[in-house]
Amino acid sequence: MPLKENSAFVAFMPSGRRGRFPVGTPILDCARQLGVDIDSVCGGRGICGRCQVVVAEGEFSKHGIQSSATNISPRGEPENLFDARKGLAPERRLSCHALLWGDVVIDVPASSQVHKQVVRKRAEVRDIVMDPAIRLHYCVVDEPDMHNPLGDFERLLKALDEQWDVKGLEEIDMRVLRNLQSALRQGDWKVTVAVHRGLRITAVWPGFKDKAYGIALDIGSTTIAAHLCDLATGEVLESDGTMNPQIRFGEDLMSRVSYIMMNPGGEDHLIESVRRAVSDLAKDVIDTSGVTPDAVLNMTVVGNPIMHHLFLGINPIELGGAPFALATSSGMTMWATEVGLDTVNEDARVYMLPCIAGHVGSDTAGVILSEEPHLRDEMTLIVDVGTNAEIVLGNRYELLAASSPTGPAFEGAQISCGQRAAPGAIERLRIDPETLEPRFKIIGCDAWSNEDGFDVEAERIGITGICGSGIIEVLGEMLLAGILRTDGTIDGALAARSARVESDGRTFSYLIHNGESRISVTQNDVRAIQLAKAALYAGAALLMDKMAVDHVDRIVLAGAFGTHIDPKYAMVLGMIPDCGLDRVYAAGNAAGTGARIALLNQQSRDDIQRIVKTITKVETAVEPRFQEHFVKAMALPHADAAYPQLEAEVPELTKVRMLAPVLAKADEGRRRRRRSRA
Amino acid sequence: MPLKENSAFVAFMPSGRRGRFPVGTPILDCARQLGVDIDSVCGGRGICGRCQVVVAEGEFSKHGIQSSATNISPRGEPENLFDARKGLAPERRLSCHALLWGDVVIDVPASSQVHKQVVRKRAEVRDIVMDPAIRLHYCVVDEPDMHNPLGDFERLLKALDEQWDVKGLEEIDMRVLRNLQSALRQGDWKVTVAVHRGLRITAVWPGFKDKAYGIALDIGSTTIAAHLCDLATGEVLESDGTMNPQIRFGEDLMSRVSYIMMNPGGEDHLIESVRRAVSDLAKDVIDTSGVTPDAVLNMTVVGNPIMHHLFLGINPIELGGAPFALATSSGMTMWATEVGLDTVNEDARVYMLPCIAGHVGSDTAGVILSEEPHLRDEMTLIVDVGTNAEIVLGNRYELLAASSPTGPAFEGAQISCGQRAAPGAIERLRIDPETLEPRFKIIGCDAWSNEDGFDVEAERIGITGICGSGIIEVLGEMLLAGILRTDGTIDGALAARSARVESDGRTFSYLIHNGESRISVTQNDVRAIQLAKAALYAGAALLMDKMAVDHVDRIVLAGAFGTHIDPKYAMVLGMIPDCGLDRVYAAGNAAGTGARIALLNQQSRDDIQRIVKTITKVETAVEPRFQEHFVKAMALPHADAAYPQLEAEVPELTKVRMLAPVLAKADEGRRRRRRSRA
Repeated sequence: MPLKENSAFVAFMPSGRRGRFPVGTPILDCARQLGVDIDSVCGGRGICGRCQVVVAEGEFSKHGIQSSATNISPRGEPENLFDARKGLAPERRLSCHALLWGDVVIDVPASSQVHKQVVRKRAEVRDIVMDPAIRLHYCVVDEPDMHNPLGDFERLLKALDEQWDVKGLEEIDMRVLRNLQSALRQGDWKVTVAVHRGLRITAVWPGFKDKAYGIALDIGSTTIAAHLCDLATGEVLESDGTMNPQIRFGEDLMSRVSYIMMNPGGEDHLIESVRRAVSDLAKDVIDTSGVTPDAVLNMTVVGNPIMHHLFLGINPIELGGAPFALATSSGMTMWATEVGLDTVNEDARVYMLPCIAGHVGSDTAGVILSEEPHLRDEMTLIVDVGTNAEIVLGNRYELLAASSPTGPAFEGAQISCGQRAAPGAIERLRIDPETLEPRFKIIGCDAWSNEDGFDVEAERIGITGICGSGIIEVLGEMLLAGILRTDGTIDGALAARSARVESDGRTFSYLIHNGESRISVTQNDVRAIQLAKAALYAGAALLMDKMAVDHVDRIVLAGAFGTHIDPKYAMVLGMIPDCGLDRVYAAGNAAGTGARIALLNQQSRDDIQRIVKTITKVETAVEPRFQEHFVKAMALPHADAAYPQLEAEVPELTKVRMLAPVLAKADEGRRRRRRSRA
Repeated sequence: MPLKENSAFVAFMPSGRRGRFPVGTPILDCARQLGVDIDSVCGGRGICGRCQVVVAEGEFSKHGIQSSATNISPRGEPENLFDARKGLAPERRLSCHALLWGDVVIDVPASSQVHKQVVRKRAEVRDIVMDPAIRLHYCVVDEPDMHNPLGDFERLLKALDEQWDVKGLEEIDMRVLRNLQSALRQGDWKVTVAVHRGLRITAVWPGFKDKAYGIALDIGSTTIAAHLCDLATGEVLESDGTMNPQIRFGEDLMSRVSYIMMNPGGEDHLIESVRRAVSDLAKDVIDTSGVTPDAVLNMTVVGNPIMHHLFLGINPIELGGAPFALATSSGMTMWATEVGLDTVNEDARVYMLPCIAGHVGSDTAGVILSEEPHLRDEMTLIVDVGTNAEIVLGNRYELLAASSPTGPAFEGAQISCGQRAAPGAIERLRIDPETLEPRFKIIGCDAWSNEDGFDVEAERIGITGICGSGIIEVLGEMLLAGILRTDGTIDGALAARSARVESDGRTFSYLIHNGESRISVTQNDVRAIQLAKAALYAGAALLMDKMAVDHVDRIVLAGAFGTHIDPKYAMVLGMIPDCGLDRVYAAGNAAGTGARIALLNQQSRDDIQRIVKTITKVETAVEPRFQEHFVKAMALPHADAAYPQLEAEVPELTKVRMLAPVLAKADEGRRRRRRSRA
């Protein structure tokens, strides 16, 4: 170090790191030596503009210094050039070219940090810390020298080491190696390389390049969703979805597996179709956002076990029957070309999150990454409802996971007037407990059915059916109004009070709307939902048994269904255990969010791999207690379980429970058939 | 440990390791606990027979015990079954099923050791210690269990850990993963896996399998050689060669590079043709030896830099001109499919040895692995003569490497009566110094030309030309007989003494044979060899300068040329520096041997990578001293250098050197043209 009078003091905010450096040191160098997180792709050459900082002005008593913009060298040629090229706000400086002249306090804006945080909308979840698996490094490589005949690749490694402190990197993709020599010469010995997980070069371009992208994929049985992200900012540039074309081989997963069982070699059709769809969807988000396919270097994927297997090219028939053996339950990294993706960089790496068990896939691993029950003290119950319901219960000390066979009732199938969530579908409903008259809202119209303007709008849109979340609300209101008894039967005695309660012969139904379509709830509709909710509740109850807890502190409803239902009615029907309604959260597409977290933060991949290994997997099919819970959970809300918190918030529930007899053993035979999954 | 009376003493030979174990312990378990090297593929299940041992009988005073075959449990069912199936010599026992009953001394035959030694024919080189990159492990995998839903892959890893102590393995090839479930079920949860370098599963088969193979490849400009090896025994099952089909794009390397320069995209033709040839050659050796292509799991490859690049699919034009930049000088591991090999297991791994410099390829790295100059105290000069001569000089303290542009004269090109080594070619020759009459031998006939029976045989075969090694002997004898002066001119004055010395006008020639073909040595032939040998000598001398040594202790002549020439004549002509003739060794195809060593011993791959980094590379083209040495080395044997050791063994050389004037500056212009390589 030079003499003290030739040095100056610098403090960086918000990290608070500080030190003394020789006058004339670039601010970026000071930051690096202090371990301050400032981004750079060009390596201090004034090209990328990632290292922007602001000099704080004023007296900082904490640091005991007077900071001033004049204590930094004035803007020079490189910063003016950058300003002309890309724009540089007056107070901003490129820290690679601003030299320390005197004591200063430097503000590092969030946008200049490598490990910046990507803020999530929901208050109760952590932000994502940027740490992508792909990093770009601009390198100036030594020209070849006959006196020291290192190969081009080895001189590139030397540059990465010297200019970026990238150590231990020894590998390069063969296709990249084949292009390396021309890239170096075309770029006049300046290239940008993409490094995957600090270990392998997966792309090289001549000259400077500062954009790399990734796609987070959620492959569902019905739909496939893709989110194209900027790997430096974490920003989602484009999201899109497509139908899973495998639907033509069967609506639900088991019918697709049956297709393969009955058509040997048929797995190839399913594999090909899902990969084609993913490639095309990737192309769509890439084209729409205007990025070059070549710059899409990383993908992360979640899916249920069968989608997981098919996307990886593995025949899923083992998952079609007991013991439901996964080919692998580990996270897997592979080339895009290995899974047939042809619309991104061919050396892009695809990371598939680990599966948890034969019925609990990498989508649930994604949900865990998104919701982080393992980082909380509170006992959290996470429910992701689809054809199966994946259930996770736990906290920082232990996690349990299971899958319950809810069937497709929650998705509106098996419901006589069920339909998908589209304009005209009933999504909200209230029943007057005195008159038993309903009022409701349909998708596409803001007014309730008893409000002005509804009829005109309804005439235009049509009142066509009840969507999946609507049916929960309808049944909940029927229960609270006394139309449904707690054993799930529609109370025929009420037919005397209201024409809406109609006899179908042996059973009764409740008429909601009598227009172009006649929309009513039949006894069979109630039974279908009862079976589904009993399976869901029994899974949660089984995990609570295993965890030896009698209540949960927090419930997260993941997936589209969880987003749209009103938690109050889910609880009134006994789909989920008792919990303060303010502690029930809708997480949206948490599986997809998990894929995005794995895309933006490489450490999370190791985390989820480790977490999945520690999860206790519970197989509902072999647990006798599941059957017991299932039987009791046929009652509404439940034969045994108390809901004190819910009853405090929904007093009429108390009345229902007091009046109604406990359901004993209704529909035993029918339940048995459903229970035997194999 | 149990009580001492319930234990017994066991000593293993030849390692000498010994210990005390409970009575009833399998001998294989004793060996493993003592770290004794005993092979096993089946993991102690009596299937593979790799763990055979012999009980030594008698008193072993060193160990203080009386060893007897009755101190081992008698042969039981598994050993009898194995005997019936594969044969088991009476004195042999399967150590996995022979139990310790009393004190014994156990002989472990070399064939039962994992790290057995593969003996090489030459006494002066080390044996190869078996340690292949591919190991087979027979595993009994837990069946899937709904109570513990680990994936099939993870249960396989568990078996590898528990049954084979394979730790830290987490990876599997995607294609192997896709077949894993069916292999496990087909094999009734017993499979054999191939593990590459202890880190990745690259093959899986149902049931027991104990054979894995590898191919060592030497890709030369003219010929490609393949050696198919058993990866357990190290045995070469089949060797074969084929012409390099790239010859149609140019005889020598530079004309192939010119082809690419003049035909953009033309590299694809060269890449495709060499890969096709390698695939076909692999198929040939596989078919001939009767192994299944699926069991060929590893390949190692050496080649000069241009072959190295083309085989890897890299355009070699950068190697066509200064500064001769390699794309990479590191060893590379890739899939067979990545280099277009389609006749071996598609998940076979190909290891390409590292290159040393732009003119010194992975073939020279192979030569170093084979000859191990870095393990010797003696100063060793290694010369591998082809179109270029690769030269390595050094010992355990330092290694230097260079390439000299010898041109194709040593291969018989540029020689008027030159031909390839085939029946009818003159390969040996002696000249009577008094009469100047020659006698010679041709390939295909055992008799000398002055012996009985020669004429009949020669009539049948034909006397057609002089092969590459023959021309060295012819010139050497001409020099020793005084027909050649030390400046390389044919002494026209001798035309008066012998009709064999004939005038061609300005120069003279020496007539060897006047039959159907007229075979003579012209002045131009001598000049061509002089230029080639001067380049070779100058390269060696330059390295000796750099190493600051005035002599070498040992010379290794690698390659076919080195195998066939008589070192005496090479030294008489001054191709190589002075050295005791008994310290000159012909190493044969040392590059190919190096590939074989890398195939059989994985550690050697890391060794050669490390060694290559430490080699000092000398570029002859930019060294002024090379030109000086070149000029002086035009003389025969050399203008300056003394050959005291050679003169002691070949006294007539002294006479030649005493009589002849030192060559000054003949053919300066012609030499200049040759020297400028670019």
